[in-house]
Order: sequence, then C-alpha cells, then structure tokens
Amino acid sequence: MVTLKNRILNDARCLPGGILKVDGLLNHQVDPQLMMQIAQEFAHRFSHIRVDKILTVESSGIAPALLTAYLMNIPMVFAKKRIPVTMANNYYGAEVVSFTKGNSYQMVISCEYLTKGESVLFIDDFLAHGNTTRAILNICSGAGVVVGGFGIVIEKVFQGGGDWLRSQDYLVESLVKITSLESETIEMS
Amino acid sequence: MVTLKNRILNDARCLPGGILKVDGLLNHQVDPQLMMQIAQEFAHRFSHIRVDKILTVESSGIAPALLTAYLMNIPMVFAKKRIPVTMANNYYGAEVVSFTKGNSYQMVISCEYLTKGESVLFIDDFLAHGNTTRAILNICSGAGVVVGGFGIVIEKVFQGGGDWLRSQDYLVESLVKITSLESETIEMS
Repeated sequence: MVTLKNRILNDARCLPGGILKVDGLLNHQVDPQLMMQIAQEFAHRFSHIRVDKILTVESSGIAPALLTAYLMNIPMVFAKKRIPVTMANNYYGAEVVSFTKGNSYQMVISCEYLTKGESVLFIDDFLAHGNTTRAILNICSGAGVVVGGFGIVIEKVFQGGGDWLRSQDYLVESLVKITSLESETIEMS
Repeated sequence: MVTLKNRILNDARCLPGGILKVDGLLNHQVDPQLMMQIAQEFAHRFSHIRVDKILTVESSGIAPALLTAYLMNIPMVFAKKRIPVTMANNYYGAEVVSFTKGNSYQMVISCEYLTKGESVLFIDDFLAHGNTTRAILNICSGAGVVVGGFGIVIEKVFQGGGDWLRSQDYLVESLVKITSLESETIEMS
C-alpha cells in the first residue's frame, strides 16, 4: 500500500529497541481517511474467504477493524485487556506479554460474542513477535471458532510473528512489512 | 435517535449499581452500521460549530469518534488511559476516577496532538458522573484548546455529569438519555 508506506516514511519515527512510533496516524492521533483506505484494502484482500465477524484487540486495532467490518457489513468484536466488571466469569481468556509495554495481561472476549463454528478475521495495527495473535488463536480455539485470516497494518518482519503464523498455514496479509529498524532507519519491503 | 433507543431496549441489560450493559452493540461487540448512523447524527448536530479535531478516550469512544471524524474529514485523537513508553514526558495529563471499574487512572494526550487555539469536539459512549469530561476539560485547558461540544451516545442523566456541563454553558448533545435504571428497568427520555 503505497499511501501507507509514504505516510510511515514521512510521519513515523524509530525509537530504541525496535519500536516504530506511528502515533500521528495510527495509534494516538488517527487519520480516518487513511484508515478507510486501509479497510478497503483489507476488505479486498479477504473478499475470497468466509468472514462472519472481525476480531481485534483494544485500543489501536479498533479503528482499522471497525472500518473493515463496516465495509464487510459484519459485526466487530474487540478483545479487552482487562476483565470488565460487567463480564462476570463468562469469558474466554489468554495471557499476553506486551513487547512495547513490557508487561503481561489477560486478554478476554465474552463467551456471548464468539459462537462455535464461526469464521473470523483478526485485524490489528501491528504484528511483531506474535504474542497477541497466539492469544487470539488460543481464545478462538477454546470457543470452537476458526481464524480465517490475519489482516495486519504494519508487520515487523524481523520479529518473527508473521513467519510463525505462515509456517502454521495461516493466511496473513500485511499492508506494510518493516524489514529493519536498525540505526533508526525504517526499511520496508 | 429512535434506532438507538430500540437497540438499547432490545439488547441492553441493567446491572446492579446503575450500570447499563451495552456490550452487544457498543463497547465489546460493535455494530458498525449502527455506529455510522450515530456518527451521522453527531456530524449533523455539530455542523454549526467549528471543529478542528475529534477527541475521545480509549477504548469504547474510539468507534463513534472515528466515524464522526471520518464524516467531518478531520483527525481523531484518543486519550490514553496509561502513559505509553513511546510518549516520554511530553503529554498533558489529568486524573480520572472510573465509576464502572472502581479505580482511578492518569488520562494523557501527547502535546504533539493538541495545538493551542484549536476547537475540539469530544465524543464518548457514556456520560455518567462526568469524571472523564472534567479530565478532558483540564487537559484541553492546559493545552489552550477549546472544547466546542460534547457528543455523547448514552447519557445517564441521573448521575449528573450532563447537568454540570450544561450549567457551565457547554454544548452537550446526547443521543439517548437514560433517566432511571432502578428496579432493573431502563427508562429513557
């Protein structure tokens, strides 16, 4: 996606430790028109598979997931990073270690919003080491739900999460692939 | 908004302690078509004021805020409930006590995304006691930014936050006003 690549080259910054700072367009300030173009691309790339529902994780996945769900005319469900007081004990959960935040948390989705036999598309802003996607696979497996594909806005290829998913025969579509962030330079393929 | 009222009557549930559970349509599973109708209503109701940017708070405000920003063709910024490692010390912050979660947290917006002299529209899923809106007012005041209006999906009138804002001459547009949740019955005006 040329538009997105150019925006990353213009607006993103490299921080020490392999962190790409895109909070001017994606995960703090959001450009809704760019986000709609991203959603159109996802809707196009996954038009050949069955998708009953879009899944994502709060908070930065919500914008691209919502617009993709809007275009595909299906519901969107966002996993929570904390168990809400309103959820009682009726949820599927999995542990996630966050790379950027340096902590771990219990990711949960209410049992009400995953139905056995459904096929879902997971959308997220980043794919790095793949900890979030593994937690989503655990949750969906527990619910009897198939993950038909992973739509990723920015894949940090050098952190291996995408390679692992592809080695397990999952369909992964990443709009931009970052191959290196060394020496504070962004390299994309 | 009749569509939204009907969806609340059909899908929402009252929980003890004045909590309205709308996680089937608004803050866990999201109906993107309903959300677009909500955004159209906000764009219409605030078409007469200057809006440079939409503000909201992660996570449940993001969906209505994003679509409103999309329709108004302006950026959306979501306040964070934790200070990201990528933000350094360059932020405006305010303390918020959460009614549903029973805890308090530091809400922050990066100084990069609030510019002195801007006029913003704050969009959120709920307005209850008004703790979040007061924090937003503190943050915007610190940044020299004017809050031109508050667009709320569901106002819990009996908790007083909306009355306080209106008493301070703020423009508040709530799509649905819940007047009572007593005896586990939803009453709306």
